[in-house]
Amino acid sequence: MTDLADAVRSGDRFSLARLLTMVENGTPQGRQALDELFAYTGRAHLVGVTGSPGTGKSSLVNQLARALRGLPAGEEPHKVAVLAVDPSSPFTGGALLGDRIRMRDLAGDPGIFIRSMASRGALGGLASTTAAMAQVFDAAGFDMVIIETVGVGQGEVDIARLAHTTLVVEAPGMGDDIQAIKAGILEIADILVINKADRPGVENTERALRAMLDLATPERMANRPCGHHAPGVPGGPGQDEQDDPVWSLPVLKSVAPQGTGIPELVQAILDHGRYLRRSGAWRQREMARLQCELDARLHASLEQRWRSQLPEGYYEAVLQRLGQRDVSPHQAVAALLDPQEAPAS
Amino acid sequence: MTDLADAVRSGDRFSLARLLTMVENGTPQGRQALDELFAYTGRAHLVGVTGSPGTGKSSLVNQLARALRGLPAGEEPHKVAVLAVDPSSPFTGGALLGDRIRMRDLAGDPGIFIRSMASRGALGGLASTTAAMAQVFDAAGFDMVIIETVGVGQGEVDIARLAHTTLVVEAPGMGDDIQAIKAGILEIADILVINKADRPGVENTERALRAMLDLATPERMANRPCGHHAPGVPGGPGQDEQDDPVWSLPVLKSVAPQGTGIPELVQAILDHGRYLRRSGAWRQREMARLQCELDARLHASLEQRWRSQLPEGYYEAVLQRLGQRDVSPHQAVAALLDPQEAPAS
Repeated sequence: MTDLADAVRSGDRFSLARLLTMVENGTPQGRQALDELFAYTGRAHLVGVTGSPGTGKSSLVNQLARALRGLPAGEEPHKVAVLAVDPSSPFTGGALLGDRIRMRDLAGDPGIFIRSMASRGALGGLASTTAAMAQVFDAAGFDMVIIETVGVGQGEVDIARLAHTTLVVEAPGMGDDIQAIKAGILEIADILVINKADRPGVENTERALRAMLDLATPERMANRPCGHHAPGVPGGPGQDEQDDPVWSLPVLKSVAPQGTGIPELVQAILDHGRYLRRSGAWRQREMARLQCELDARLHASLEQRWRSQLPEGYYEAVLQRLGQRDVSPHQAVAALLDPQEAPAS
Repeated sequence: MTDLADAVRSGDRFSLARLLTMVENGTPQGRQALDELFAYTGRAHLVGVTGSPGTGKSSLVNQLARALRGLPAGEEPHKVAVLAVDPSSPFTGGALLGDRIRMRDLAGDPGIFIRSMASRGALGGLASTTAAMAQVFDAAGFDMVIIETVGVGQGEVDIARLAHTTLVVEAPGMGDDIQAIKAGILEIADILVINKADRPGVENTERALRAMLDLATPERMANRPCGHHAPGVPGGPGQDEQDDPVWSLPVLKSVAPQGTGIPELVQAILDHGRYLRRSGAWRQREMARLQCELDARLHASLEQRWRSQLPEGYYEAVLQRLGQRDVSPHQAVAALLDPQEAPAS
């Protein structure tokens, strides 16, 4: 094992930070260390936290990290990593600002490590980079990795799918609209949290969420890795599910700055972890997660390989013909896939 | 030209609906018609409307469609298509419910066509399918195509990038938080709208938006198709921009159900269209848009081709070894890219 991987394993924070940066930048050295460390992963409980802007997610995550560290005697205190994924622009530095506030708040505890990823164009895709960084934390001995994402768009769904347990955060006043509570959250949520529960309208939000829960029994997306099934994979869908204990999605309330509702939330996260292990779903989600990562990396590699074989200027020539509407997008793809057979000019 | 393409060109609504379904499902017949129709595209003004849930986007889009139809004498009334892209689950039917309400509202006007896309797993990706459906409307003579998406995640950004003009919709009470107004919206917005402007807190939202506008001058993402530049492409970045008239992002207010602010919004959209044409940015965005579509289709085709060449059961075997942590994700990709060189078992 390289010195770097070794130092990360032994808990050196500086090496950890260095490796995370390498992994984020996709350097060969980072990849090598990750290859070495991969055998030591699989222990961490990955907790995804997602929700619209304005729901107070970051504050909630801070409180969660703090509470997970200080669990009652008898349980070993968790080592907690927070990975804040902010796909918005690095230009205005939203993630960095948030970070500085957090650092001040949680600094000094060696059992907590906070890291932001603000880069949009991470090599191999944001979800893939997030997965790799979670693996680094996992191998470094962090047994709780909180992955915080903004919103519930497709990109966030991809990232949430990495997690064993996904919290979807709502807030009062955003949930009364016909479109307000997106059906999609039911597919990714394991725990629903109404944060800012001291605000007016909390009853409406709770009622709307519960009504939606009563109505819908959507297929759990965590069981459909990247949209396709994986037949024949041990722990794959359908194998361990026959006599599953059932997880009934809890709806919890919190006021993060005051710590209200945080102990209950921590309990729900730990309960969900136990449920996953007992039911076999832990392994199932892990396989789904690994498959998503594999597929994302494959796509990136396939494109790289194809691009490197293309004659110089060929792509640009086809694009130009497309712009002149000489060829349709479908015809342009055919020309790009088989440069010899269908010359562009 | 096939009968179907011909019928769509001549304005037959039933054929249009049929072709849209074919395109959404990725049928060969739909692809053929699209190939034939592609030469007739390029006239429509594509307007993207995006924003968080609860901002009243759908109601705003309805009002916009209605207003665009009824422009003052002297200007030819627009034919308006609305394409509502809802990547959330088809299970609970959010999009369908919204649709029924709209249908009732705008039914009977032959110059308006409304279509929802609720399917998450569209062949070749949601953005690609959205682009293809917009092309169908374009070829069918709709000169305004409004593409409505939920949220401002990466998926929505991809879709917004299809548009010539992108409206980002905000609402009071969602914008006072440190994370509330995501930096990302400045990269995609051409027009900012504060809808529900009769609600308390509208001044705060406006102040926050204007403050952010003053602070940041982010690189316009519309000029960076899919994250990469396209050197040497006519109309590409840098060529027409020297003496650009400047578009200064307007911040408008509206109360959609009452129609307040709608005429100003319509004016801003038309102004932006004129600005794009005058500055050369129209062509530039169109090229960016076509390139995004081309790339998305390429990726899908590359994967399909690679998968068809893989020995049966090989993928599953590699995945299993990954699950046992015998190989890292990086090593698994290497094995999948070159099955002969690195056998999995």
